[in-house]
Amino acid sequence: MKKPLNVGMIGYGFMGRAHSNAYRQANRFFDLPYELVLKAACARQKEPLQAFAERWGYESTASDWRALIERKDVDVIDICTPNHLHAEIAIAAAAQGKMILCEKPLAMNGVEGRRMVEAVEKAGVANMVWYNYRRVPAVTLAKKLIDEGKLGKIFHYRAKFLQDWTISPELPQGGAGLWRLDVQAAGSGVTGDLLAHCIDTALWLNGDLASVNAMTETFIKERKHNLTGKVEKVGIDDACAFLARFKNGSLANFESTRYARGHKALYTFEINGEHASIAWDLHDLHRLQYFDHRDEGQVRGWRSIHVTDGDHPYMGHWWVPGLQIGYEHSFTHQVADFVQGLASGKPAEPTFRDALRTQAVLDAILQSAATQRWVAPEM
Amino acid sequence: MKKPLNVGMIGYGFMGRAHSNAYRQANRFFDLPYELVLKAACARQKEPLQAFAERWGYESTASDWRALIERKDVDVIDICTPNHLHAEIAIAAAAQGKMILCEKPLAMNGVEGRRMVEAVEKAGVANMVWYNYRRVPAVTLAKKLIDEGKLGKIFHYRAKFLQDWTISPELPQGGAGLWRLDVQAAGSGVTGDLLAHCIDTALWLNGDLASVNAMTETFIKERKHNLTGKVEKVGIDDACAFLARFKNGSLANFESTRYARGHKALYTFEINGEHASIAWDLHDLHRLQYFDHRDEGQVRGWRSIHVTDGDHPYMGHWWVPGLQIGYEHSFTHQVADFVQGLASGKPAEPTFRDALRTQAVLDAILQSAATQRWVAPEM
Amino acid sequence: MKKPLNVGMIGYGFMGRAHSNAYRQANRFFDLPYELVLKAACARQKEPLQAFAERWGYESTASDWRALIERKDVDVIDICTPNHLHAEIAIAAAAQGKMILCEKPLAMNGVEGRRMVEAVEKAGVANMVWYNYRRVPAVTLAKKLIDEGKLGKIFHYRAKFLQDWTISPELPQGGAGLWRLDVQAAGSGVTGDLLAHCIDTALWLNGDLASVNAMTETFIKERKHNLTGKVEKVGIDDACAFLARFKNGSLANFESTRYARGHKALYTFEINGEHASIAWDLHDLHRLQYFDHRDEGQVRGWRSIHVTDGDHPYMGHWWVPGLQIGYEHSFTHQVADFVQGLASGKPAEPTFRDALRTQAVLDAILQSAATQRWVAPEM
Amino acid sequence: MKKPLNVGMIGYGFMGRAHSNAYRQANRFFDLPYELVLKAACARQKEPLQAFAERWGYESTASDWRALIERKDVDVIDICTPNHLHAEIAIAAAAQGKMILCEKPLAMNGVEGRRMVEAVEKAGVANMVWYNYRRVPAVTLAKKLIDEGKLGKIFHYRAKFLQDWTISPELPQGGAGLWRLDVQAAGSGVTGDLLAHCIDTALWLNGDLASVNAMTETFIKERKHNLTGKVEKVGIDDACAFLARFKNGSLANFESTRYARGHKALYTFEINGEHASIAWDLHDLHRLQYFDHRDEGQVRGWRSIHVTDGDHPYMGHWWVPGLQIGYEHSFTHQVADFVQGLASGKPAEPTFRDALRTQAVLDAILQSAATQRWVAPEM
Repeated sequence: MKKPLNVGMIGYGFMGRAHSNAYRQANRFFDLPYELVLKAACARQKEPLQAFAERWGYESTASDWRALIERKDVDVIDICTPNHLHAEIAIAAAAQGKMILCEKPLAMNGVEGRRMVEAVEKAGVANMVWYNYRRVPAVTLAKKLIDEGKLGKIFHYRAKFLQDWTISPELPQGGAGLWRLDVQAAGSGVTGDLLAHCIDTALWLNGDLASVNAMTETFIKERKHNLTGKVEKVGIDDACAFLARFKNGSLANFESTRYARGHKALYTFEINGEHASIAWDLHDLHRLQYFDHRDEGQVRGWRSIHVTDGDHPYMGHWWVPGLQIGYEHSFTHQVADFVQGLASGKPAEPTFRDALRTQAVLDAILQSAATQRWVAPEM
Repeated sequence: MKKPLNVGMIGYGFMGRAHSNAYRQANRFFDLPYELVLKAACARQKEPLQAFAERWGYESTASDWRALIERKDVDVIDICTPNHLHAEIAIAAAAQGKMILCEKPLAMNGVEGRRMVEAVEKAGVANMVWYNYRRVPAVTLAKKLIDEGKLGKIFHYRAKFLQDWTISPELPQGGAGLWRLDVQAAGSGVTGDLLAHCIDTALWLNGDLASVNAMTETFIKERKHNLTGKVEKVGIDDACAFLARFKNGSLANFESTRYARGHKALYTFEINGEHASIAWDLHDLHRLQYFDHRDEGQVRGWRSIHVTDGDHPYMGHWWVPGLQIGYEHSFTHQVADFVQGLASGKPAEPTFRDALRTQAVLDAILQSAATQRWVAPEM
Repeated sequence: MKKPLNVGMIGYGFMGRAHSNAYRQANRFFDLPYELVLKAACARQKEPLQAFAERWGYESTASDWRALIERKDVDVIDICTPNHLHAEIAIAAAAQGKMILCEKPLAMNGVEGRRMVEAVEKAGVANMVWYNYRRVPAVTLAKKLIDEGKLGKIFHYRAKFLQDWTISPELPQGGAGLWRLDVQAAGSGVTGDLLAHCIDTALWLNGDLASVNAMTETFIKERKHNLTGKVEKVGIDDACAFLARFKNGSLANFESTRYARGHKALYTFEINGEHASIAWDLHDLHRLQYFDHRDEGQVRGWRSIHVTDGDHPYMGHWWVPGLQIGYEHSFTHQVADFVQGLASGKPAEPTFRDALRTQAVLDAILQSAATQRWVAPEM
Repeated sequence: MKKPLNVGMIGYGFMGRAHSNAYRQANRFFDLPYELVLKAACARQKEPLQAFAERWGYESTASDWRALIERKDVDVIDICTPNHLHAEIAIAAAAQGKMILCEKPLAMNGVEGRRMVEAVEKAGVANMVWYNYRRVPAVTLAKKLIDEGKLGKIFHYRAKFLQDWTISPELPQGGAGLWRLDVQAAGSGVTGDLLAHCIDTALWLNGDLASVNAMTETFIKERKHNLTGKVEKVGIDDACAFLARFKNGSLANFESTRYARGHKALYTFEINGEHASIAWDLHDLHRLQYFDHRDEGQVRGWRSIHVTDGDHPYMGHWWVPGLQIGYEHSFTHQVADFVQGLASGKPAEPTFRDALRTQAVLDAILQSAATQRWVAPEM
């Protein structure tokens, strides 16, 4: 029998489901040194928590995260709360010697983030942030191709994350499933929610950013708050775009919005190198577009790689060529890599420290938008 | 606590995995009247069976299917064996009063299939065949649109299932994972393996076929047999295409092969109606292409529907709009529907009887190819 | 000054325009040994002919084609009449020693076609049939890749030509622009109009067909005739599909219809070879899809070749990479090749004799559909 | 006989060919009040000019543009020279009372441009700038849909023009066909060459820009000059991106480069409105992507409109639905509209004054890039 790795989950929302599923699935498809155990689920609202725990098979529930992190039978704390609670929980859990998996973005800002990094590093506990898109097989393949040098010198990086779900002025701005619209809970709008993903991928694929120049916009200035019932000023950014320069000399163009009619969750990126280019699109997540200038001229063209073969990242663990897996398994892969990182001693990325770099860029973006100047992220 | 529904699985290959996963997942995403329990896994090879059972959490194992079907603690027998064993097991399991889920194609031929239908109907046991593609959300949506009358009178139906994995003459023709190339175990080649899916979908979407006219080909005439080590004549069809007429007057064109370089599992269908047309493609399984002639002329065009919204079939149970699920959940949906069918009294389709219609078409195809004539399926 | 090549055009409909344009354009973009001169346009209806001649700059008009073909100042006769007039005009023109360019299909049937071939060959006059799609640059590139052996042994060929313009029962079946619906003028429906193109390309790319097995359908059985005003039986085929075997052992699947809602002129073909596959689509005519199995595994995928580079067929004569040319220049290229063929002594294809092979397949298709049997084209 | 409109062409390069072709073609496909006549071609190099004039059928040649603009038998002066000559020629031609068609961008900068506008307006002569992409049928359709209010309030506009032809450091920076790389002749790099097109379209579709914030980059700092043979500093921008705000409140994101491996001439734009969105791509120029949120939910999706129908802009003049025209006819349409504008008294756009707005944005971009600040175009 494998040694168990006991998970204590805080939160039961969208991400609570996604992570719970990943913990249940990882051992089915990957040979891992530990068996993941859903030990305890924690939240304040008793009834929905109970339903959640039963559905996913958690062995117990807890209403107070402070009690949870002290439990001896819990090895890993998974933080799936709104953003404003990440730091407090993570720092306390680190002090208890727990491993910590934290939802993205790491923190409300770089100051908080730095304290979190210090806490986990001081405690020497394993830690990771759920920037899950790194582990969509096509994205992982992109990283592999770049690392192999296929692109050569990079000239351009562009990424977008476009949604359209907040166009209606009738949508309230907080409560329950809508905390992402509440600046108190979320810290920012699309910048921390969507661009954070784009930036994590970008830093991973193309290295650090030297400077950024951003603009933000809040198209709908006031919305009713679901909990208070009052019409209040909207504090988040509805849209954010920024130009940037990477330290490697390449130029960047990032954009995110929740007002792009027709796009549900269109996260795309494209990288143009001296020899080859790569493009990816979350709406068709199993395809990687690849252009290689070294191909024979007359048959040169963008290749639509259906990333489902056994020699594609992660895919040997699933079905057969041509058959796709879903969004959810970006989390399954991350769980598998985390557990393998524990055994190998080479921690799975992104760690809190990795995620802090993204946090620094987020801070720089918001500062640039406020001051209308180029800003260098504090790294 | 929900009442358990105890599953006895026969076989542990590709489909054994896919079904096991579905049983574990269905209750996580659907509110079902029964809790699915992986009670027993059955196969002759002890070691791989043990590994399989542990990985998926089966409570027990069995080496003899005859013993399994007699067990009181098993409610459902799931037949994931090579085709030539379907009939014997199903008929015996029906006699024991077990519900039966059988992999496709139902049988080696219509004669066997008819005996199986008689057995389950006489026993009055719930039964279903794993034509899983009906429950890819985009395919289910296609059915819904047709049932709503959006297409009007149908003129054309065309489907293809193209693969390329047997082009190499070095590939052996049987043993272990290769029984699909062995005519003794499989009954036929692409006809029963791939066209069976196309036909099941077609009959479901467009009604019965009146007559078919087929050709088959075996490109590589001899292959080594993995088990015997001898070079033997290849008995299966490598490719099969047929023209057909539906009873509703529409024309059909079907094709399948394992020699279409560049296509891993390209199952596509298209239906052209008086008012609208629909097209689908397994390689991009979350998209349904839809053209509606009633749209305003200047903005008429094929719509690429990303079938991931809450009001799309099954998708309200998963993530959020824009995020995809994988191939595997066509099985999860089928499990969910089967269980709901038990409770509602309206059996989930396709039943053995439904699948017998497909079997009749398969027989007609092979007969037509052999006689070079139009043949009417015996329905 | 270049030597003139004087064209006498018979007909002024859609093809009359397309050819006239090609004659005017060829010398602008290609360095040709002759200057094409629009010498005379011929048709019975005086006023529209006059307007046509003025618009395109014909030097003269003629109302009787018999007079036209006797004119000393005309070198080339271009036959753009309905199909039932091709043979008579071509045979007479050959007797006058004229070069002949004839619209496709060559004739009403193989008997007529054979007489036409004999006439031009006996007279020793240059001749060509307007199967223009061979000279869409992406199609010409496909031919080049096949000739270079990139595909290896061919397993499959499939082609479709789908339209949707005759779905309405209100559409009349003859007169003016509608002679293609009149069996007396057209000879057949989609078989001669659309499949003829598919077959010409197929024979060119993949060699002769050994046998065919077809079905045809006339969905709307009666239509009003525009000229007589009477409701009459429809004599043409609205749809035709056929299976076939090429002499090289590959399998074929062809389909054509005017009842495929959503497709305006969707001529597509795909060829699957041992090493590589090719696909093309008239609706996006500048793209050739190409899959090469010899590519490195992890980055293997269908390449979307944007056929607009200087080293792509014909494209060095046009604009710059990335900029497309239109449908019309398939004719311009054919004119250029015809003229170059005159100078080089290597006649441009397809000649009447080449087109007769296609005619034989058309005859076999109609015979197969009528007899419900496999038929070998008489070649 | 129609009244002639005599054209005097200055320059014989890429644009000289494109315009000459348009003048020859316009009367063939459009019923225009004037017959366009290629009266004179003008350039300094005698031999290539002679060849050019013969190929296109110019009645005469001229070596000095000052003589050309004085000719009584010339009605229209078409300026196809490098950018630094536009102003001088245009102002002189206006003084001679000639109509003027000028290649884009209008001028080297806003100061020059303003003088040109004053000159043509003072002289009261018809004038137009060759921003040809407005008249690609799909782009014209986009304008129509916006004018009909289909999109509602606009939130986002994004455009890119990506090329890859200057990645090699071996490419020289000037002389003959390479003046676009020479800052003395071109004024700027991609900003004036490519972004100018994007901006013209944007202002036309979405109104004026309030402010811009740009960055530029020259990746290769030195190149050999073709004429001098010396390695010299590169003065042009290889890449330029800018954020912007439109006066209507929408946000903009523009990017252009000649270092995007895999893109030959990828001009794309997308507009996101409250109700609908539109996207277009020069590489597949006959398709307009359109998403309408008002479509029934379950069948909502991006529509791929194949803009080839008789009721699509300009397309009734060409072939039949499904058949495409090429890049070149954006010029043919512009000629047709110019001539019709002369007759109707409603001048075809963009006039010099319209193009001056684009020039103001170009100036603001370069100023912003130099000062690293937001700049408001001087309109």
